Amino acid sequence: MISNKWLKLIKSLHLKKYRKAEQLFFVEGEKAVLEVLASDWQVSALFATEHFLQRYASVTAKAELVQQCSSDELIKAGTFSSNDAALAVVKIPASTGFTAHRSGWVLVLDQVNDPGNLGTIIRIADWYGIKHIVCSPDTADCYNPKVIAAAKGSFLRVQLHYQPLPALLATSTLPVYGAYLGGESVHSLTLTENGGFIVLGNEANGISAELEDTISRKITIPAFGQAESLNVGIAAAVICDNLLRLS
Amino acid sequence: MISNKWLKLIKSLHLKKYRKAEQLFFVEGEKAVLEVLASDWQVSALFATEHFLQRYASVTAKAELVQQCSSDELIKAGTFSSNDAALAVVKIPASTGFTAHRSGWVLVLDQVNDPGNLGTIIRIADWYGIKHIVCSPDTADCYNPKVIAAAKGSFLRVQLHYQPLPALLATSTLPVYGAYLGGESVHSLTLTENGGFIVLGNEANGISAELEDTISRKITIPAFGQAESLNVGIAAAVICDNLLRLS
Repeated sequence: MISNKWLKLIKSLHLKKYRKAEQLFFVEGEKAVLEVLASDWQVSALFATEHFLQRYASVTAKAELVQQCSSDELIKAGTFSSNDAALAVVKIPASTGFTAHRSGWVLVLDQVNDPGNLGTIIRIADWYGIKHIVCSPDTADCYNPKVIAAAKGSFLRVQLHYQPLPALLATSTLPVYGAYLGGESVHSLTLTENGGFIVLGNEANGISAELEDTISRKITIPAFGQAESLNVGIAAAVICDNLLRLS
Repeated sequence: MISNKWLKLIKSLHLKKYRKAEQLFFVEGEKAVLEVLASDWQVSALFATEHFLQRYASVTAKAELVQQCSSDELIKAGTFSSNDAALAVVKIPASTGFTAHRSGWVLVLDQVNDPGNLGTIIRIADWYGIKHIVCSPDTADCYNPKVIAAAKGSFLRVQLHYQPLPALLATSTLPVYGAYLGGESVHSLTLTENGGFIVLGNEANGISAELEDTISRKITIPAFGQAESLNVGIAAAVICDNLLRLS
């Protein structure tokens, strides 16, 4: 059973201000919970069905508290509409400040608001081996349950940093690529350096005007049809695919 | 005001069986409603705020019924959590069977269940100038409001066809590309023909076993990191980008 005290705590973690105050967030579903149990992240509590606990007895010991509960309780506590496996309450790791890199690729998100988009972009970064994402302070919170669900375990391998972007980009010694409509085609790029910042803008407004001066190369995904734009997650994937294949 | 009769009809159109029975669906939000009004699709009714009707007076006349209503009424009838513009009830166009093509690209979706993924893929097809998507009969319904919302007007330019896939693919004279883990890298493909079918599988299970024999080239997006997979919408975009740049 999930005690009232824990239920109340988990429900509070749906909101950013309580995640920040408690320095906790939660992970739902069999696969993601197994990934977090296999990682070096600290699991404060694991709530799981009898079936899950029996099947994965060897890995559940690392949780500070292990409690059997029903699928209905998991659904009540979390955000999933079905969950017959587990929910883990996890400590938010200490944030390490982003130190300017001298090689390799870093994604930069300027006001990406939608948690689903952020989660998708974390998963894409992991696919392309990008270890760091720097987010403007008003980008969606990476411990939002929708981000965690969309990131599919990749949140364990990609570090997110929240900080003002203008100063970071203005002092970069590596190229700063920015996704715009009407820039250089990503199909005909040649790289001057094996790495750089890749800046993606807000879903509705693109990259903010105050960052424009810091962008050294405006890049674009060529359109062959009539759609006006691509979703920011889709754009992130296509741009990463085009830059990473060259490096 | 939206009359009770219309409200009841629109609410029923949230479900596929009523969309099929009435041969109607609905489109929400300023941009998408304007696109449908500018198209040759038949608009049975337009419900819109005073502001929308004043601003776009010249284009609203094509709707058979135009009714002013409040933003709250639009929210109550539709699926959006905010809508201060319009909702259009639109006739489903007569479906034209898909006739085997001899050139160009066609997307093929095998049991893509998530409406958001389908909508995203329609938008991607439109970006890459792909005019036809053939779906297995159990793929999400393209007139689902979540598909229409995610497709952002691209549903007007891309034709969807629902039909059994094995017979279609088995008789293709063009290459049939299938997205698999562990196929040929999309970064080193050369094309034998300027077109073909691009098959994408179910979110959890990939392409069904019964289609495997019809796939002439198994292709893969190279991974540089550790994520196990990419979302089907993301995979569609990266594969289209890689194939279309060659053609």
